[in-house]
This record gives sequence, C-alpha cells and structure tokens, in this order.
Amino acid sequence: MNNYIDLTDIEDLQELIKEALQLKKENSAANLGKGKTLGMLFFNPSLRTRLSTEKAAKLLGMDVMVMNAANDGWALEFEDGAVMNSDKAEHIKEAAAVLSQYCDIIAVRAFPGLKDRDKDEMELVMNSFKKYASVPVINLESATGHPLQGLTDALTITELKSSKKPKVVLTWAPHPKALPQSVPNSFVEFMQKLDVDLVITNPEGYDLNQDITKDTPVIHDQESALKNADFVYVKNWSSYKTYGTILSTDVSWTFGAKKLELTRNAKVMHCLPVRRNVVIDDAVLDSENSIVIHQANNRTFAAQAVLKRLLSPSAPKEKVK
Amino acid sequence: MNNYIDLTDIEDLQELIKEALQLKKENSAANLGKGKTLGMLFFNPSLRTRLSTEKAAKLLGMDVMVMNAANDGWALEFEDGAVMNSDKAEHIKEAAAVLSQYCDIIAVRAFPGLKDRDKDEMELVMNSFKKYASVPVINLESATGHPLQGLTDALTITELKSSKKPKVVLTWAPHPKALPQSVPNSFVEFMQKLDVDLVITNPEGYDLNQDITKDTPVIHDQESALKNADFVYVKNWSSYKTYGTILSTDVSWTFGAKKLELTRNAKVMHCLPVRRNVVIDDAVLDSENSIVIHQANNRTFAAQAVLKRLLSPSAPKEKVK
Amino acid sequence: MNNYIDLTDIEDLQELIKEALQLKKENSAANLGKGKTLGMLFFNPSLRTRLSTEKAAKLLGMDVMVMNAANDGWALEFEDGAVMNSDKAEHIKEAAAVLSQYCDIIAVRAFPGLKDRDKDEMELVMNSFKKYASVPVINLESATGHPLQGLTDALTITELKSSKKPKVVLTWAPHPKALPQSVPNSFVEFMQKLDVDLVITNPEGYDLNQDITKDTPVIHDQESALKNADFVYVKNWSSYKTYGTILSTDVSWTFGAKKLELTRNAKVMHCLPVRRNVVIDDAVLDSENSIVIHQANNRTFAAQAVLKRLLSPSAPKEKVK
Repeated sequence: MNNYIDLTDIEDLQELIKEALQLKKENSAANLGKGKTLGMLFFNPSLRTRLSTEKAAKLLGMDVMVMNAANDGWALEFEDGAVMNSDKAEHIKEAAAVLSQYCDIIAVRAFPGLKDRDKDEMELVMNSFKKYASVPVINLESATGHPLQGLTDALTITELKSSKKPKVVLTWAPHPKALPQSVPNSFVEFMQKLDVDLVITNPEGYDLNQDITKDTPVIHDQESALKNADFVYVKNWSSYKTYGTILSTDVSWTFGAKKLELTRNAKVMHCLPVRRNVVIDDAVLDSENSIVIHQANNRTFAAQAVLKRLLSPSAPKEKVK
Repeated sequence: MNNYIDLTDIEDLQELIKEALQLKKENSAANLGKGKTLGMLFFNPSLRTRLSTEKAAKLLGMDVMVMNAANDGWALEFEDGAVMNSDKAEHIKEAAAVLSQYCDIIAVRAFPGLKDRDKDEMELVMNSFKKYASVPVINLESATGHPLQGLTDALTITELKSSKKPKVVLTWAPHPKALPQSVPNSFVEFMQKLDVDLVITNPEGYDLNQDITKDTPVIHDQESALKNADFVYVKNWSSYKTYGTILSTDVSWTFGAKKLELTRNAKVMHCLPVRRNVVIDDAVLDSENSIVIHQANNRTFAAQAVLKRLLSPSAPKEKVK
Repeated sequence: MNNYIDLTDIEDLQELIKEALQLKKENSAANLGKGKTLGMLFFNPSLRTRLSTEKAAKLLGMDVMVMNAANDGWALEFEDGAVMNSDKAEHIKEAAAVLSQYCDIIAVRAFPGLKDRDKDEMELVMNSFKKYASVPVINLESATGHPLQGLTDALTITELKSSKKPKVVLTWAPHPKALPQSVPNSFVEFMQKLDVDLVITNPEGYDLNQDITKDTPVIHDQESALKNADFVYVKNWSSYKTYGTILSTDVSWTFGAKKLELTRNAKVMHCLPVRRNVVIDDAVLDSENSIVIHQANNRTFAAQAVLKRLLSPSAPKEKVK
C-alpha cells in the first residue's frame, strides 16, 4: 500500500479486514512505528477521526503531530504558476514537501465546499498532497470519500454478521444541516466489495453519484427496502443532483422502532455523531440493536491496520530524505 | 477509586497524600500507564491544570489526547429525549460512550455559568460523564469543586507544616472578575479532613455554601482571623448568596505585608494565576513566605497519585471493550 | 549552554554544527531526553518551527507540551509592580516559575509588534522568560532574531558548500506583508561566524540594523551583488530605518532565472513559507538549484543539537525543584 486515499489503494480488502480484527484482539505491533511520526493535518474540525487515528498511531509506537490549518492561519495555494501576492502564504508544493521531511505518514482531512460539484470531485487537496508528498498520504475524510470510515464499517459487518450473505440497507434520514456524501459514498464502495446484499434507500432527488452506486439497487420506498435487513446503516446526506442542498427534512424517514420491526432484528449502524430523534430515535439507539458504539470503537483498529500497512517495509514507495 | 469527581471518591485521604509525596520523591511508576490513554476534555480553557495533569500522565507512561470542545465546535446535548434539530450535534450518551472506547480515563473541565445557582449545583456535565462513561472520570474543575487543587493543597500543607495542628486561614481577596467558588469549596472540604485548625474569613455577603463550610468558623473581620495563622490561603470568589456577583472590590482585603505580620510567620498559598497587588501584594509574593510556586509544582504529584489509583488493577469498575 | 536565546549562547558554533550533522546521520540520542519535558509556548502561530522542534524533542525521547497563549486566552503582565486589575491574569514571574516546574526546557515564540522599534529591541518576552525561568529557555523566533533558523542555515551551508570559502549573498525580495527582520538578522550573525564571503543586497531604505551587519558589505545593486554567488538566501523584510513599513514592492527584486544566471550556479535558500513568483519564481524553486526543502529538513537537526546541549549534564545552570 502506497497511500490510503480511496478504495483503489487497497489491494486485498478481505486481508486488510482480517488484519484489523487481529489487531483488535492482540494490539501487539508497538515496535513497528517506533521513531516514526504521523502528521495529522486538519482543514476541518475532527474529534472521532483524530482520536481514533491518534490512538491507533500510538498503539503502533508512533509519535503524532497535529496541525489545524484554520487555527494556524495556514492558507495554502494549490494553483500551478500562481503569483502569490494575496492571502495564501504557502504553496502546496512546499507544504507537502516540508511535511514529508518531518513526518513519515501524512494524514489529511479536507471537506467539500458543497457549492461546486465539479470542484469538489477534483479532490484538489487530497490529490495535491498525494502528488507532492514523498511519504504516504491518508485520507481522513475528503470531499467525496471517507475510506477509514468505510473500512471500519466493512470490518464491523464482517465481525458481527451471523449469516453468510447478510442484507445490508443504507438508508437516508433527515438532518438540519447540509452534509457531504463522503460517508455514504465510501460505505457503498466498501459494501460492493463484500459478500453482502446491498440496498440503498433515499427520497427522490437524493440518489448518490451513479458512478459510485453502479448497479446497487436504489429504492425510494424506505419500508420495502428495510424488509428483512440484517444491518441498517442510517445516514443523512445532501442532494447530489441538486448539489449540496437540503431537499427534504421529512421526519417519516427518521429511523425509529417501527422501522426496526420491518427488519430481521437488524443491527443498526451510524458513523456518529448522530442527532437523536431526528436521524435515529432514542428507542433504537438505546436498544440492543444499536451497534454504533461498537462501530466507533472499530475506528481505531481500521486506522491501525492502514497505518501498519503503510509502515511495513514492503511498501514500494520509498521515503527519500 | 472508581472516579475522581469529588472528595467522596477518596477512601483514605491520608494514604493518598502519602502516595503523592512518595511519587514526588521517586517518580517511578512509569510502566503502570503504558499503552493506556488519558483523554482530557476542556469545555473551558486551562493551562496549569492541563500541563500538570498531562505531565503526571506521561510520568506514568500514559499517552494523552487533548480535546478543546470550544475549538472543535463540539456542542453536546445533555437532555434526555431531546429532538436534536438545532445546534447540538452529539448527545452526551454517545460522546461519553465513544470517548470511553478511545480513552482509559476521561478528564473533564466544565466551569459554572455563575447565573443560575441550582443549575450549576446540578453539575450536569461532570455527572453526565460519570453516568455514561464506562471508564473512570476525573474532575479538572467543575461548577462547584476543584478536587485536584484541593488534594494539592492538602498535600502541600501536610508536607510543609511544622506544628502538629497548624492554624489554616482561608481569606477572600478582591478581584476584578466574578470567579467561581470551586477552589475555595474544595479547599474547605479537604482541610476539614486534615488535622488543622481551619478558619474562613470573608466580607459580609461572601459566605460560602454552608452545606460545605458546615461548622468551620466564618469570621468577617480579616485581621482577627489572621492572628497566629501558620498557613494563609488567599483566594477570590464571587458571592454565593447573591449568586455569581461581585459585591465588593475592597482593597483593604488585599493580602499585603501588614497582614502577614499578624500571622505566625505564615506560609502564603494561592492556586494561581494570581493578580499581583490586587489579590496579594508583591511584598508577600516575592518574600520567602510565599509558597505558591512550590504549591503549583505539587499539582503534578496530586494528579499522578489520582491517576495511579485509577489505573491500579484493584479498581472494581472494569472497562468493557 | 544555559539558554538558546541568541548567538552569544553558543560557545563553539563549529562544534554545534558538527553535532547537528552527526545527529542527522545517526539519530541516536533517544535516551537523553527520557522523562524530560519540553514546553513550547507560542504567542504567535507556528507550523514549521513547532513541527521540527517537536520532532527533534521526540527523537531525543522527550515529551512535548504545546501551549498557544492566544487560544488559551493567556495574557501576561510583564511590568514590575503592576496593579493587575485589568485584562492580564498572570504575571511573568509566576508564569515562568510555574512552567519551570512542569517543563525541563521552555521554548518561546514572540514576534515583534513592528510599531515601536525600541520596544521590540528590548525583547521583553524572551528576556523575561530568561530572567524568571529556572530552566533553560529556547528562542523559537523573537522580535529581533531566529537563532534556530540561523543555526539551520549555517549547518546547511556547511553541509553543502563545495568551495572552502563560498560567496554567500543575502538578497531582499518583495512581499505583500510587512515582515520582521528576525530571520535576516540571525542569518547575518551566523554567517559572520562562518568562513564565508558574505554580501547583503537590498533596496535603499532596507538596510538592516548596522549593529548587526557591522562591516558586512551592503550593496543596493542586486545584480552586481549576485555575481559569482555560491549560495543565495532570498528573504523579505520590512524597513528597519522607517521601522516596520513596506517601502517597496518592486518586482525587479524578485529572484528569477535571470538572476540565477548571474551566480556561480548558486544554491538558493529560503526559510519558508515562500510566496512563489513574488519572492522567488517557479523556475528557480522547481529547479535543482533550490535547496529550500533540504534546508527545511535541517531544522530538525539544528533543534536536536540545541536540545541535546541543553539536556546534557554539563550544563552549569541547575534546575532546582
């Protein structure tokens, strides 16, 4: 593994999931990261992702340095050939090259603007770091994907499934703010690689990017989609078609006890933070069907498996210093 | 010890003080915390408390992760059953449960609003973390108490006293801002457990909560209170009766050289930061009677003793992961 | 070495450079800092300096605690005898003494205001920490100097020079913001200690403090200054004479390919961040002549050599605790 930007960086997902579950049991690779530094660069705030990745790095023996671009007033220029006489003090070329001197792995979070779909889909920040860094780059959630969450979700379902090919339903739910599609995108991509029966359900106008959903069934009737589900992943996202907007706050899509009854006693997932009684009702979150805390705990082991791979000596991309 | 929220969490104060003073001499428990993580969550800014607790944790071999709720825009919902469609993105139930996955001990700072006494006395933040976390919780100063400071003060007096039963005077002093009662509250509670002769002196209207002061004498004449004092703890607090307000900025209460002369060559304490020439005069702070720096240094060992207890295997509350 | 505030703290620069280059090769002093804490206190934002110094400390086995005075709302009083009844909550006397309890070395960054030259030259923050701290103090860039950058630059030139006495040119370049003179000041001071032929070139009105430049030639014709240069250090600074102002944004001073041709195939340096196509052109920064990334990497080893000296047991100033 050279980077961890998106699913294409994973050569063998099953093997990576196995490694993560093994790390969860043992937690015994503390020497691999000794003397190595993880630099975490946040263009947007983070709590869960920072903590779980920081913990994973430290479990591997790594040092961690955290940078908040906003707090440090660090505005980067990404355009080639720019005459930098305005507010941007550093070009991505220097920024990535310098961080590559101080860090053995660089992890970056950069949300979409949700205004201009083409611009967001360029993944300028993530791809620029990939291009100009001389060390591996990890995606801590970008404009269009959140592959550490996707790996977490894949390993959670692998760990907890009780049938060979479970039915997994991704359902939209209302939310007061316009949210990115990065989490559902990555969830869909990872599920398509597992031996599961995946169904997506959302209101009209909320269909995800078809380049990602491909031939996964998208059903606009939530109740029929939920039937016999073994896992239900509840998540809000803003419209992809009418890009970045809130088309509906229809509370009939909130996931509550009656919806749960339609399923095969499904385990209920969410990436957190979750708006109680808007996205998922108390009755579900406080029931035994909710595995959201278990799932959050798995964030650590997903990050650890990725870091372990990137640190492993077989990685072909060499750090030149 | 299961938590360190208030004095009731300490089974044997004398023993804990002895342990802290021992740690100060030796500093040799670096393996107890290995592979363990302290999560420090600040709803209010902190410098001394963060540094001393962070240092204590690292001396025990722990990793430390710091979270600033304000900076990270992390607004928590504490109300049961709330429909979370406004600005609060996460419920304390998930927040505490998730932090319990990533951290082996959670330390929380949450100041009072100083507007609504009943609400402050509910200690909503601290008690909610205690209720919903599955790992031990440490109070880094809450609405009504600061038990790490209280333990520091108790061990400082134990360490430096030259008579069997010293006279200890807690005296109010003026301050331009309305401050919480948490430090004096904890000081009184800890002193009541030591073999000292405790006297409180403050202007009329500034009496602390009588549920805390109990039968400790409260004298409104500072000069008579200070007579023959072996230790003087100088500290401002806002009115408890006329809750959270400044009733007086009377500089005749400032602790200066003449006040010191009334004492038995007393050692002068303050939790810091201290407003020079408002709370305590230069002549006192720059004299050999001031032990405020010595006292600040003891913060580390108080925190270390508490962390050591919470990490020790005899703790009955088990972390389920 | 007792502190690292300015060049006078270095007894033997050549030896220190040798040590830094040795650390770059080996990186094997990880035990010296074990159980020791570096406290980094920022009155101004920092990225490169924080990361490289933090990394250097960790390579030595030290723990690092970072404090942002601005974020923590920590306003210090520096005046002796002040009656502290306004916005400043803590006096430098306590601040420095307390940090000396928690930290084994204190590193401080405090930029100039660039309004009042006399005030900036007093170096109030740095000198106050030096005066009141009981542990060594490191300058992470102060009002008038940046000795960690100066040491980095000296070791980079020592490492990469191909002639016995290279010609080194420090050239001013335009910039949209008024910048301190700290980096060029330290560069000049360090170069004066090396066996190099140093020339400074800048527009009229931009001459640096003559107490620092001394008999180093200052030439106002950039082209003639650059002739046969082996190293060119490009850097903007605001006027010292018309203190803190921008007198010129003349792009004819931008360092581009044609300027490079005047030199002896010079290596081009900059402390970063650099404004592309304003300070230095793409054609130079993207050429093999640019050593800015190499130079940035050396920040770690300069910091490591300084920390190593300050940690070494021969240091005469003892930490009393």
